[in-house]
Amino acid sequence: MFYFGVDYYPEQWPEERWAVDADLMQAAGLNVVRLAEFGWSRMEPEEGRYEFDWLDRAIQILSERGIQVILGTPTASPPAWLMSQSPDLFRVQDDGLRATYGNRREYCPNHPHYHEVSRRIVLQMAEHYARHASVIGWQIDNEFGQRCYCPVCQEAFQTWLRRRYSSLDTLNQKWGTTFWSHAYSNWSQIPLPLKTGGSPNPGLALDFARFASDSYVAFQKMQVDILRQKCPGHFVTHNFMGFDFDQIDYFELAKDLDFVSLNHYPRDQWKFRAAVNPSRVALQHDTMRGLKQRNYWMMEQQAGSGGWEILSVAPRPGELRLWAYQSIAHGADGILFFRWRTARYGTEQLWNGLLDYDARPTRRYGEIHKMGAELRKIGERLIGSTLKPEAAILLSYDSRFAFQIQPNHPRFSYPAHLHQVYDAFYRQHIPVDVIAPGTDLSAYKLVVAPALHVLTDSTAREMESFVKNGGVLLLTQRSGVKDEANAVVDRPLPGLVAGLAGAIVEEVDSLADGMSNSLEFCLPQLGSVQPEVGILCEVLRPTGAGVVATYTRDYYAGRPAITQNRFGKGQVVYVGAVGGEELYGPLAAWLSQLAGIHPLFQAPAGVEVSERWQQDRRYLFVLNHTDLAQKIPLDGQYTNLLDGGSRLQGTLTLPPNDLAILTAADEYPY
Amino acid sequence: MFYFGVDYYPEQWPEERWAVDADLMQAAGLNVVRLAEFGWSRMEPEEGRYEFDWLDRAIQILSERGIQVILGTPTASPPAWLMSQSPDLFRVQDDGLRATYGNRREYCPNHPHYHEVSRRIVLQMAEHYARHASVIGWQIDNEFGQRCYCPVCQEAFQTWLRRRYSSLDTLNQKWGTTFWSHAYSNWSQIPLPLKTGGSPNPGLALDFARFASDSYVAFQKMQVDILRQKCPGHFVTHNFMGFDFDQIDYFELAKDLDFVSLNHYPRDQWKFRAAVNPSRVALQHDTMRGLKQRNYWMMEQQAGSGGWEILSVAPRPGELRLWAYQSIAHGADGILFFRWRTARYGTEQLWNGLLDYDARPTRRYGEIHKMGAELRKIGERLIGSTLKPEAAILLSYDSRFAFQIQPNHPRFSYPAHLHQVYDAFYRQHIPVDVIAPGTDLSAYKLVVAPALHVLTDSTAREMESFVKNGGVLLLTQRSGVKDEANAVVDRPLPGLVAGLAGAIVEEVDSLADGMSNSLEFCLPQLGSVQPEVGILCEVLRPTGAGVVATYTRDYYAGRPAITQNRFGKGQVVYVGAVGGEELYGPLAAWLSQLAGIHPLFQAPAGVEVSERWQQDRRYLFVLNHTDLAQKIPLDGQYTNLLDGGSRLQGTLTLPPNDLAILTAADEYPY
Amino acid sequence: MFYFGVDYYPEQWPEERWAVDADLMQAAGLNVVRLAEFGWSRMEPEEGRYEFDWLDRAIQILSERGIQVILGTPTASPPAWLMSQSPDLFRVQDDGLRATYGNRREYCPNHPHYHEVSRRIVLQMAEHYARHASVIGWQIDNEFGQRCYCPVCQEAFQTWLRRRYSSLDTLNQKWGTTFWSHAYSNWSQIPLPLKTGGSPNPGLALDFARFASDSYVAFQKMQVDILRQKCPGHFVTHNFMGFDFDQIDYFELAKDLDFVSLNHYPRDQWKFRAAVNPSRVALQHDTMRGLKQRNYWMMEQQAGSGGWEILSVAPRPGELRLWAYQSIAHGADGILFFRWRTARYGTEQLWNGLLDYDARPTRRYGEIHKMGAELRKIGERLIGSTLKPEAAILLSYDSRFAFQIQPNHPRFSYPAHLHQVYDAFYRQHIPVDVIAPGTDLSAYKLVVAPALHVLTDSTAREMESFVKNGGVLLLTQRSGVKDEANAVVDRPLPGLVAGLAGAIVEEVDSLADGMSNSLEFCLPQLGSVQPEVGILCEVLRPTGAGVVATYTRDYYAGRPAITQNRFGKGQVVYVGAVGGEELYGPLAAWLSQLAGIHPLFQAPAGVEVSERWQQDRRYLFVLNHTDLAQKIPLDGQYTNLLDGGSRLQGTLTLPPNDLAILTAADEYPY
Repeated sequence: MFYFGVDYYPEQWPEERWAVDADLMQAAGLNVVRLAEFGWSRMEPEEGRYEFDWLDRAIQILSERGIQVILGTPTASPPAWLMSQSPDLFRVQDDGLRATYGNRREYCPNHPHYHEVSRRIVLQMAEHYARHASVIGWQIDNEFGQRCYCPVCQEAFQTWLRRRYSSLDTLNQKWGTTFWSHAYSNWSQIPLPLKTGGSPNPGLALDFARFASDSYVAFQKMQVDILRQKCPGHFVTHNFMGFDFDQIDYFELAKDLDFVSLNHYPRDQWKFRAAVNPSRVALQHDTMRGLKQRNYWMMEQQAGSGGWEILSVAPRPGELRLWAYQSIAHGADGILFFRWRTARYGTEQLWNGLLDYDARPTRRYGEIHKMGAELRKIGERLIGSTLKPEAAILLSYDSRFAFQIQPNHPRFSYPAHLHQVYDAFYRQHIPVDVIAPGTDLSAYKLVVAPALHVLTDSTAREMESFVKNGGVLLLTQRSGVKDEANAVVDRPLPGLVAGLAGAIVEEVDSLADGMSNSLEFCLPQLGSVQPEVGILCEVLRPTGAGVVATYTRDYYAGRPAITQNRFGKGQVVYVGAVGGEELYGPLAAWLSQLAGIHPLFQAPAGVEVSERWQQDRRYLFVLNHTDLAQKIPLDGQYTNLLDGGSRLQGTLTLPPNDLAILTAADEYPY
Repeated sequence: MFYFGVDYYPEQWPEERWAVDADLMQAAGLNVVRLAEFGWSRMEPEEGRYEFDWLDRAIQILSERGIQVILGTPTASPPAWLMSQSPDLFRVQDDGLRATYGNRREYCPNHPHYHEVSRRIVLQMAEHYARHASVIGWQIDNEFGQRCYCPVCQEAFQTWLRRRYSSLDTLNQKWGTTFWSHAYSNWSQIPLPLKTGGSPNPGLALDFARFASDSYVAFQKMQVDILRQKCPGHFVTHNFMGFDFDQIDYFELAKDLDFVSLNHYPRDQWKFRAAVNPSRVALQHDTMRGLKQRNYWMMEQQAGSGGWEILSVAPRPGELRLWAYQSIAHGADGILFFRWRTARYGTEQLWNGLLDYDARPTRRYGEIHKMGAELRKIGERLIGSTLKPEAAILLSYDSRFAFQIQPNHPRFSYPAHLHQVYDAFYRQHIPVDVIAPGTDLSAYKLVVAPALHVLTDSTAREMESFVKNGGVLLLTQRSGVKDEANAVVDRPLPGLVAGLAGAIVEEVDSLADGMSNSLEFCLPQLGSVQPEVGILCEVLRPTGAGVVATYTRDYYAGRPAITQNRFGKGQVVYVGAVGGEELYGPLAAWLSQLAGIHPLFQAPAGVEVSERWQQDRRYLFVLNHTDLAQKIPLDGQYTNLLDGGSRLQGTLTLPPNDLAILTAADEYPY
Repeated sequence: MFYFGVDYYPEQWPEERWAVDADLMQAAGLNVVRLAEFGWSRMEPEEGRYEFDWLDRAIQILSERGIQVILGTPTASPPAWLMSQSPDLFRVQDDGLRATYGNRREYCPNHPHYHEVSRRIVLQMAEHYARHASVIGWQIDNEFGQRCYCPVCQEAFQTWLRRRYSSLDTLNQKWGTTFWSHAYSNWSQIPLPLKTGGSPNPGLALDFARFASDSYVAFQKMQVDILRQKCPGHFVTHNFMGFDFDQIDYFELAKDLDFVSLNHYPRDQWKFRAAVNPSRVALQHDTMRGLKQRNYWMMEQQAGSGGWEILSVAPRPGELRLWAYQSIAHGADGILFFRWRTARYGTEQLWNGLLDYDARPTRRYGEIHKMGAELRKIGERLIGSTLKPEAAILLSYDSRFAFQIQPNHPRFSYPAHLHQVYDAFYRQHIPVDVIAPGTDLSAYKLVVAPALHVLTDSTAREMESFVKNGGVLLLTQRSGVKDEANAVVDRPLPGLVAGLAGAIVEEVDSLADGMSNSLEFCLPQLGSVQPEVGILCEVLRPTGAGVVATYTRDYYAGRPAITQNRFGKGQVVYVGAVGGEELYGPLAAWLSQLAGIHPLFQAPAGVEVSERWQQDRRYLFVLNHTDLAQKIPLDGQYTNLLDGGSRLQGTLTLPPNDLAILTAADEYPY
């Protein structure tokens, strides 16, 4: 069964309404709900008094309609009775001000009392629901995030550092605290990188970012351990915030879970733009799939305009269904829409559900109703099928944190750069995995490592062995600059991969507004366009590599900007400048060719292609993200799962915001 | 006598200067001064020691020249000896930081000790001046404002809530604290909506805004009570900050006063623009007149460039006099200029008076001197005359506060929207009253309720009965969304007025930059222009109403945007989209026609028209706000009060920044 | 010997590297290093334990290569053991938040314990190095700055005020605390001008700015006294931050030093622009020379891209050498480059030195190597030579602080205005001294006093006597407005110089965006261009002066904007409006002519000219700041010191970013 459901808050509505809601869900083909992740004050209205009967009754009504249940542990939003026990329970912001009550996620993730009270409610829930027939799994907390700078965290950070470095001498040496006389003679002297401290030591700041991330990993682990023990038959997940969230190393947070889940809103208050960028959405998905290199769930799929103070642009007709299928195309094995009915109360009054305030089913309910019917037919065929990219892109949280501390350029953004490189492959319908540095690369033909700023020995060695064995590796500017302690290496850049690149960085220019440069390609297969580059321009000196492109302007005109090095059976391309689509487009095509990777399919701009494999059967998702009908030439006979199995040949016509799921016609027994 | 005066600070100048100043005032026709509202440290130089003799001497000198006195209670700016008694006396900002000494308005309005010390100085002043022949009235404090977030206020807020809701159950239910587990089990748990708390519960936030407003109302009431008891013959007022100020419900603050007063500076540091918008100025005045539905005073009429750190644009020649007459045109019955002489010391060194630092009378003094002479002739005719608008616009502080909490759109502003609708009537010379929702509407033919977001039963009923009896009502987008607790209603929008409108809101689109739509009118009398709309676009579904306009673009092209519903003897027009002048202009004309309201007069753009009635005699103010001479065609024979009574016929020519006060020629016995 | 060196941090590198570094320095002609100014934690690793042997060894290695040493006292960056002793040691920001550890300059400059511990380390260093043969001088601390708003400073401020005003009555009168009831009845009531206090009393705020400046002067003095006593043979200096730094009265800070030093980075993170403005660089230098009216040092001359979080634009080829010679051209007698090798650790990882992280000498090392060779040949001729400007510009820190408090206009900037006026003379190759108001002016023919807002009696008298004796004085708008206590004068503006100007300010207009005016000159020698003016426009009324220019627009069209007054043997020109190059250009030419000053040389735009005199021998620096070769016509026969003495006649051709040092050919005995 393909899990298809909604996030539901029965506690926010009169009990007499529950059965009506459940009927409407059932009618729309929904078979799973997430419950209770913000219900702490209802489940434990005063300390130590637990009330689950309301929840039991809600689950009963749902299960009678064949709807199964995922339970959320409620620790993301603590009750007032708890937080009024001590101001110390509250998170401290990076400006040194302590959070106050009234929103959510205001707790310090390292506070022992918060851990203790959280442990108790999770244990109570686990014991109560361990053997409940309708409960299938758990979501821990909700959208972990936000660094805390409180004294409890400062002490925990010092303890964390002691474990990491054993001695203060090592720490002082790794951080280089001789600089500005910062040598620490006692662990307790080590500060947090508060804004009131100004630009901090990069080593300290990177370790603090890791520590803050680890704090949530540990808080989650405490809950996971309880659930593993009490509810061995249930899955355990957490709802992540996708590629965009930048305060937790998601690879680490994913480790203790069965699978990860994604909350993603292509249109919400914080993405208030006319157009959705489907490639950025795709990157969210590929990142989630990469966290554990396995399929994942959509725990919150957009159901309507999303906003707190601001109404987002309304999802256009067809978009909700299209986005939900896009999730599946990238590896989602379960989808829940957030939320069932728009809340009348609280901060999220403007966050729209499938039903309106007045309980009226909206056009959005209609779209999901339609998709529910489709999935009842085809869901089984898709469930468990997988993607098989031959290319991978390395997402390094260490580098991401390091660029948060020192962006290098006012307009350089590590995630934007990574997305821009990703986008070139996306446009050419070449699927990629998004994986962590250090992962075994032997399954790939092509690996892309954009701005791999913090580079460890082991990652460098893994890349070396990948290339030696025939892999194609792309490196971009500012790679290999830092060691694990965020110190600059004392060898020519790109440091540990300078040998692999066969080139070193002679110097780097940082371009202010009004400055730009462009490249001239030396290889005909890259075309004759001269792509504009800017932001950061490294002047390269080959030490064995060939020159792929040179600068055309300024004092480094004619000097190398891109090099290509043969290494073992493979090749390494190093790109020393930041460009745009006209740079990364030709590069992606050329690199794919070098690696022997072929696009999935030819399709016009704005049409996305992705594939899932059920053993040998391929399901090709063709998604029209434009507001015009698109004609897609077909390379053979296909059947479209979504229109009941009619045979297609010649041209596929897709209406705006619509899709097809193609499979080979000759094998498909409709 | 028409009161015409200045705000004067004798304590800031050598005593030997006072008589010279008084002579110059007398020469300019000034007959009233406001004194002492920043004189606390001079009247009570140390706690409990009161000194009024300096003030007695100043009043003596003034009264010898026939100048009467309004006294300010000095509580807006406490002395250093008081505020150094305890840090608790200081206001806390919304970021949680406590104010410090050195400006003004730094006090917590709920602090019991501040109340106590304030009560004592007011009592002393009241007793000393109760029977003084020259003293005619009182101004309480100065420009009440600014919310305080201190612990004293938190406790006072909890007490205020207890009075409002009686039980925590009711509060939890009204605010919907089930959302995010915020249920309060003890009044003391209820937080203030500090920025450190993030986006708060809308119910809590709206109640806090009301509470903060009520705090000043109560602080004022404490002072009013003393003055009523001790000085029954004196009037009591407060100087308001017009339509623009948004932190106090001015209708509530006005209730305990005899009349309200306005401080208004068309040109100051915070309105640093080349051009003054006379319609926005007119709105300030109409709001003040509406607060008690009676005439008001100008307590601070601009006398020169106004600024603290920044010099404002200098008032152009003629502007000071023009603005002063504009005040009268809208209902001012007294005018005081701020200030007499520019201060040499303190924060307001750049706030210019009628005299310069060097005591030189400026060209500004000259303008006021001229006006003084005019008012000596015509003032009596105007005093007590009133305006009689047939249209009213509803200003809802509840809605305004609610939009502060959730603006709905980054570029939506409730006051800007209200002004835009107001402006359409202003341009067509149709006078309006600005009144509170819930006011008896039976005196009006047309009522405009822009974005009446928070809507109570009683207001809805009042509007229903108004329409039923033949009134014309205009509603605009996002009306009727919230109940009194700032929860969304559970019925189709516009909620309580959906029946009145004969239409419901199907869905709402929020338009990001680069998105827009336009309307096509279905009625010929609205013209063939297709006005641009944007920001928020509601798709309407008539349930009885007719369609007045439809959208032309996007997925809701052809769907209704404006509807017209007959209800009883009246009509309701609902406008679902935010537009500009080309939308509200035709609408205002059409609605006025529907309501049987005729423009006062025809005049070119930039020429304002207003009228005051003294029993049956009409005084028509024609004000040229442009920097060009304007020719205005006359519809009959008139006499201009300002040029000594010459007869006018055919065309009136007004120099730039000049005006005429017309009255019917045949009746006016010059 | 011309001192030519680098800032070096041996403590940041392995000891075995030191000799290699010293060899490379020697090879580049470097003969001096600055050491130890961030070495506190290495010199005093725990309280009271001093370790100088590592520094002794480093100095030994350097001195063996003929490299001399300047020692920095390390108080700019305290060790962790010190700052962990008490939170009170940390500076408080103007928002009331206390600084935390992890950067530098986090200390309160008035804290007694910080003074005490600083005194001890300075004393230890002084005793240890008093008689060391290689040590030639001292730098106190590093880049003094930042105001502190802590309680210790509040008390120190109150004490400072008591010394300044003796009685509270005087203070209350001078500050005009009657305004807003701020009269202080106890010194302890006086607050600091924190942001939480809002717009402060201008008198209080100006005194606080002076006090904060004096705090650093006193902290420096404490150290200077120790060094004078212990190391009478050494010079003592501090590294200033040039004209741009605005929180310390640099004239006061310079007084206790032998000479001042400058840190200046034409390209760094905070000046992230494509182009460098060489005139602004020149102003930095002229300001430093003016502080003591003598030559100075460059303690930190840029050596590469400079940034903390952001890489600056890379210095273009030739720029480092050109800037270094520009320093000499303006009076530098010693130059040290910051820094030797780019740091691998700490906040300044992106601040590039002459050597890269990997110890590779860069192209930048190459440039400096070349210059080292040149200076070995010509340095002696330049050392001790001086500039002899006939014009001076007054830089008033009182006025600068006053404009920080009240900028008068959103786009008015005192330093930008001063630079704009300076720039007009710079472009015409007329050298100026930048000196303090009150300085003896008798040596000059022309004195320029831009926006001399705070004006004392003695400065006014000095200017009067200067003009009376034949000097030409230029005054600009907003001069003479304030007295020493930042109160506005009670006489017509420009106050104390109204008589000198022969004109008074009738009124002032402040121009918002979209407003502008222009001037018409009444004197043919000023040309027929009508320069645009704006920002602040004063309408002048001559009381004896002639009219030089009138306004062309708005209500003051035809009214005087510039006046010229004969006074004694001299003349005073008053300019009432803020203009640009087309205003100040003609004015500078005309005023120079009036004063009998001739340009040094004719040269195209972008070519700077400066001269130094060694007794009667003139060295003319001709610097090409453009990226094109420039042809400069010569007015006689010259020799270029930099190309070995070839004779030049007719035309000098300078490559981009290159220079010549010319001297009269007939006298120069190559």
